[in-house]
Amino acid sequence: MPEPVNAPLPLAVTIGDPAGVGPEILAHIKAREAEFGLPALRLVGPSTASFRPGQPDRASAQYALDALEQAVALVRSGECGALVTGPVAKSAIAEIDPSFVGQTEYLADACGMAREDAVMMLAGPSLKTVPMTVHCALADVPARLSQDLIVQRTRIVRHALRRDYGIENPRIAIAGLNPHAGEDGRMGREEIEVIAPAIATLRAEGIDATGPHPADTLFAPHKRGTYDVAIAMYHDQALVPIKALDFDEGVNVTLGLPIVRTSPDHGTAFDIAGKGIARPDAMIAAIRMAGEIAARRAASAQNRLP
Amino acid sequence: MPEPVNAPLPLAVTIGDPAGVGPEILAHIKAREAEFGLPALRLVGPSTASFRPGQPDRASAQYALDALEQAVALVRSGECGALVTGPVAKSAIAEIDPSFVGQTEYLADACGMAREDAVMMLAGPSLKTVPMTVHCALADVPARLSQDLIVQRTRIVRHALRRDYGIENPRIAIAGLNPHAGEDGRMGREEIEVIAPAIATLRAEGIDATGPHPADTLFAPHKRGTYDVAIAMYHDQALVPIKALDFDEGVNVTLGLPIVRTSPDHGTAFDIAGKGIARPDAMIAAIRMAGEIAARRAASAQNRLP
Repeated sequence: MPEPVNAPLPLAVTIGDPAGVGPEILAHIKAREAEFGLPALRLVGPSTASFRPGQPDRASAQYALDALEQAVALVRSGECGALVTGPVAKSAIAEIDPSFVGQTEYLADACGMAREDAVMMLAGPSLKTVPMTVHCALADVPARLSQDLIVQRTRIVRHALRRDYGIENPRIAIAGLNPHAGEDGRMGREEIEVIAPAIATLRAEGIDATGPHPADTLFAPHKRGTYDVAIAMYHDQALVPIKALDFDEGVNVTLGLPIVRTSPDHGTAFDIAGKGIARPDAMIAAIRMAGEIAARRAASAQNRLP
Repeated sequence: MPEPVNAPLPLAVTIGDPAGVGPEILAHIKAREAEFGLPALRLVGPSTASFRPGQPDRASAQYALDALEQAVALVRSGECGALVTGPVAKSAIAEIDPSFVGQTEYLADACGMAREDAVMMLAGPSLKTVPMTVHCALADVPARLSQDLIVQRTRIVRHALRRDYGIENPRIAIAGLNPHAGEDGRMGREEIEVIAPAIATLRAEGIDATGPHPADTLFAPHKRGTYDVAIAMYHDQALVPIKALDFDEGVNVTLGLPIVRTSPDHGTAFDIAGKGIARPDAMIAAIRMAGEIAARRAASAQNRLP
């Protein structure tokens, strides 16, 4: 049995789209809560009995959006200690609310923060990694990268690794954009003009940032032990290695928010919903990580009392 | 002890740059040849005693280039059955011969073939993968992709998997370029305009090509069993997962050449050369794979005799 997580408050948990794998995964987990050593869970949202697995529609998207709103309110009010969100169908919710691009951005809005300051980290047993750009065409990535973006997001990452993971001086490895990190400008100049200067700025602040590292070897076994987090330049540079290595236990953590939020790093999986074959491991990992972060934040607040 | 590889002819092996890890890795392997069950090896090139590990120079680059030329001649003449090349310093060789961009392209030239028809595949115990574009800036990737490129290179990959790996009808999974394979054009249109039409052309020829698949999940464990080879759109999309999963046993195979050629998928590693800590696993895997392919080609030529 895994070590129990002692979070001081229950965690608010959403199932995501009720036509996806969320309901069966959470039913499985609720039935074995003690066995998994999980903190108390508060499942948010009415019964999902009227939804058909694998058949998402506007009503199931609306359900997911309403539950997310309620769960955020429970955490913002202090009733729950952290938020764990199930997978939703982004484009279906966007048809209801055109401002919706993803749960991470929704949470930034709900917390009154700039969307660019809510930073997605993927965390698994093998690796923690943060993409600097996320949902844009690959052709748009070079223009979206800037020294400011890398400096600002890396600062958020460092603060979160200190506060939420107890890593005092996080070792931050920053990937290049181009093959072999551009080979001194022979294959792209972003390393020279954007990434290296950003690293210099971070290092001048005392942050242990290194790079730009060639991305292909950065995620190899012998390199993974040399850093606490890898900063990637685009979506697949981060998500390919984490899903190759930690697919069943990958957690999506939102850094930089006032509230604690995690999510399993898998989608709604409508194609296998209702078949009883969806693995609960990533949701369990997301719940454990949310509980651990909430407990750490609570202990640290306690220590600051007079 | 691994099963012995029975290649009909010795393999021509180069150590690559003699200031890199090649000499110590091949000394290690030669001393334990029988133990590893390897075919006969013919090490090409004079003594490396005059070179200093970790201190590459023009002479060490010249050594690597000369040995490569001799080794190719041994295979082209039929004296050796396959070529296994150690890691070289590309830019150092390019200073001697400006037309040199890599050993793969050198071999295409030496075999009188178009460079674009020599296709690099990375192969390890977990995965075989082929990038459609290789050594160019990430910003240049979208413009370099074309239906013709994908169709032509995938045909070469399929032919090689049939001839050299004995896979009768290879299952070929083709990745998208953009996050989530573009999500129906919301994040980039290359999937719709270039990749999907190329797949349709390949399928019309009876080739079992599927996709475009979102790259982030394509290399996850449950997906890797569904294809024989993954076609990636750019360098790091292929090399990040293979090095994350199979770093110590990754083999670089050149498909489409008249000769058999493999190479360990690691660099010269000048930083650790001479320290006796370089792992021989990838070179052993490259030798085994070259021997197996050579044996398969020889057996197949034998079967065609009257």
